[in-house]
Amino acid sequence: MATKKLATWAVNLETISESTRKAAVRSLYNYIGCAIGGSNHPTVAKAHKALEPLFGRPTSTLLGTSSQCDLQHAALLNGIASHVHDYDDTHLATIIHPAGPVASAILSYAEYQGSVTGEELILALVAGIEASCKVGLAVWPEHYDIGWHITSTTGSIGAAVGVGRLMKLSEAQMAHAIGIAAVQVTGLREMFGSDTKSFHPGRAASNGIVAALLARQNYTSSEQALEAKRGWANVVAGGGTPKLDELLNGLGETWEIETNSFKPFPCGIVCHPAIDAAIRCRVELTQTHKLDPRDIKKVSLRVHPLVVELTSKKEPRDGLEAKFSVYHGCAVGLLYGKAGPAEYADEVVASTEVVSVRDRVSIEADSSLAADEAYLSLEHSAGTKLEKHVEHAVGSLQVPMTDEQLTGKFVDQVSLVVGRDAATRWSELAWHICNARDIGQNIRDQD
Amino acid sequence: MATKKLATWAVNLETISESTRKAAVRSLYNYIGCAIGGSNHPTVAKAHKALEPLFGRPTSTLLGTSSQCDLQHAALLNGIASHVHDYDDTHLATIIHPAGPVASAILSYAEYQGSVTGEELILALVAGIEASCKVGLAVWPEHYDIGWHITSTTGSIGAAVGVGRLMKLSEAQMAHAIGIAAVQVTGLREMFGSDTKSFHPGRAASNGIVAALLARQNYTSSEQALEAKRGWANVVAGGGTPKLDELLNGLGETWEIETNSFKPFPCGIVCHPAIDAAIRCRVELTQTHKLDPRDIKKVSLRVHPLVVELTSKKEPRDGLEAKFSVYHGCAVGLLYGKAGPAEYADEVVASTEVVSVRDRVSIEADSSLAADEAYLSLEHSAGTKLEKHVEHAVGSLQVPMTDEQLTGKFVDQVSLVVGRDAATRWSELAWHICNARDIGQNIRDQD
Repeated sequence: MATKKLATWAVNLETISESTRKAAVRSLYNYIGCAIGGSNHPTVAKAHKALEPLFGRPTSTLLGTSSQCDLQHAALLNGIASHVHDYDDTHLATIIHPAGPVASAILSYAEYQGSVTGEELILALVAGIEASCKVGLAVWPEHYDIGWHITSTTGSIGAAVGVGRLMKLSEAQMAHAIGIAAVQVTGLREMFGSDTKSFHPGRAASNGIVAALLARQNYTSSEQALEAKRGWANVVAGGGTPKLDELLNGLGETWEIETNSFKPFPCGIVCHPAIDAAIRCRVELTQTHKLDPRDIKKVSLRVHPLVVELTSKKEPRDGLEAKFSVYHGCAVGLLYGKAGPAEYADEVVASTEVVSVRDRVSIEADSSLAADEAYLSLEHSAGTKLEKHVEHAVGSLQVPMTDEQLTGKFVDQVSLVVGRDAATRWSELAWHICNARDIGQNIRDQD
Repeated sequence: MATKKLATWAVNLETISESTRKAAVRSLYNYIGCAIGGSNHPTVAKAHKALEPLFGRPTSTLLGTSSQCDLQHAALLNGIASHVHDYDDTHLATIIHPAGPVASAILSYAEYQGSVTGEELILALVAGIEASCKVGLAVWPEHYDIGWHITSTTGSIGAAVGVGRLMKLSEAQMAHAIGIAAVQVTGLREMFGSDTKSFHPGRAASNGIVAALLARQNYTSSEQALEAKRGWANVVAGGGTPKLDELLNGLGETWEIETNSFKPFPCGIVCHPAIDAAIRCRVELTQTHKLDPRDIKKVSLRVHPLVVELTSKKEPRDGLEAKFSVYHGCAVGLLYGKAGPAEYADEVVASTEVVSVRDRVSIEADSSLAADEAYLSLEHSAGTKLEKHVEHAVGSLQVPMTDEQLTGKFVDQVSLVVGRDAATRWSELAWHICNARDIGQNIRDQD
């Protein structure tokens, strides 16, 4: 009954609590920032050029540009852009990045269809994200362990559910849409480190659109697509025992979207506690002690062993390498009080100012620390000594990013692509998306 | 090394033996017949209408019609059509239907690109079919047992290889194309009996096109996509141990395409020995004994138990039910000497002539018989008695369909869609495809 249960719930979802709505708006807000922020990345440019021979009627905007293409490819390219900087959201219980596939699909479809309100869009997003995360939880962790990229394997289903909502599919059609999405199992972890990693959420978005379009014409699949012996969950479970019934019973009771989290820094999550500590130190150093961070004498970090294992590049040569350098993250945190995309630009990574502070940072592994914990000790040339203990890094479930921090993240990354004025306009639109009367029109008006 | 080995082999394939070429031409010939034969099926019509909003520049023909659409959707819709009657080819060792995904992709792409010769097309088909069948064998049977529809899960890879050949990708690009195809794992057996079963080979064809287009722009995946710990084979092996190296070492030595087989009758393969026996009996009855098959007194069939289990519908009401009636297959074989799509039309199934003979047929299970074996005993009202023993049904590896039989199958099914004259023209083109100087032009000239 899992497939029908999910379909029935998704079709009939009408009201959500304020906390769910708030979580949805924040997820969509963060998605739009990441999709625009990634839109000028070379990976997106390659995919755009490659797929141009397939483009259809231009109805849907490539976020961050003034171009449009057909809804399938807009979804695909926006999905790539949203993931390419590894800066998107994370449903921590499954490490699904849920907004990419769902939001890419529903925004493209909303613009194609026209007259979709912000309210309808938010409900579609919620339905789609709950669908992906619940089915993801049902096969977690074996599904991920064996090698599936869970963001996209579940994302096709979430995207179909989201688009199916906007189409106002019947319950039976929605079940078939879930089935058609379920047969398009996209994403392998082997691709991490290549362009294809970002292709995964993009393709999941377009898989969902294709599934919903087919179901709308009563193209049949199976009403037991998820739970059947040879259906999705059993086939992709990677040897585990899928817990579909248990999880789908929780639909509408526990809300996965409320546990969606956002990355404050565009680098590996293991670095985050140390960067957070550096930023907090800078505040104290400059505001309380009125000292110049360029004159720091030395910095010692005590961190979880994984930080040393994964991010101990002492002399990163460019922005990409800097993502694997806790030294760099700590240095820019101390110098500039932030570690956004601008602080990972190649020229910043190579600047004498940054290199000079970076060289004064030392790190030490301490297996008694939690993964989201860090200690930082700092000595300034003026003689002042500071200590910081970060118990849970910003962006964790315990210390979620504030709306203000999300705005900073958004404006910083979007400004790099479209300039600060447009970034601010986009930010306003995205925060007030629930008021939109025709979201597609609002998007086109930005360009 | 499996991915690189396959890429290197596929890029450099230059010559094939006459027997391989012959097998390839027969596979493509049978594919074209099935794709045209299925083109007016309601499943194809639904998909066409559903996906129209996505259509791009019309460059590639929907076989059996005078319409064109963009290459991705032409491949998808032709792929659906080729499989929708379950009348396509079978690589018996894996039960992959290999031509559907590969031929749908390369024909659409050839027409889009222009100036592709028949020779180039055949080499692309061979490369693509060897790729799908070899990787399929590597994960057979556990991959299928767990619930994957192996035709399409391997078909994406075969289609990418075929299209990659036509694009003249470099070895590195081909490896990346294989990787991008490998992450799009499409097709679950749960969908058998629904429209989505035929979607599988269609989507596999379009997956392969997308993969090759991306790789041509140097979009990267992994050069160990097939063999890596979290690559294709290990993830989809369904608990089995993939035998990639072993199988890819056989590339260019054993040719899977030479073991591709074709169905003589558009019904479940278990019925085939009995139908074959009936057709052979009719020849003897009418030619040797000059007797009218309408006056048969009784017919007794002795068959493998599966025939009784799966196809013992005594009074089928329409063409679809008749596919599960060995009584019907036997009756039309005796009456008309064939059992093609026309003999499965609803009005034939309901005709008094057919019903009358069908009612005189009895069947008996005999577990000592092989699955492709049957005994038929017949008594005519004139007193004549005949016995037939079919050791291996026509269409098996031991008794492959002759070119003449393939022509009959082709013309019969294609005539039902485009009329006999056009069917004969298509048949001529398809048999002489190696002589084509621009296959796309030849296809367009048919309409």
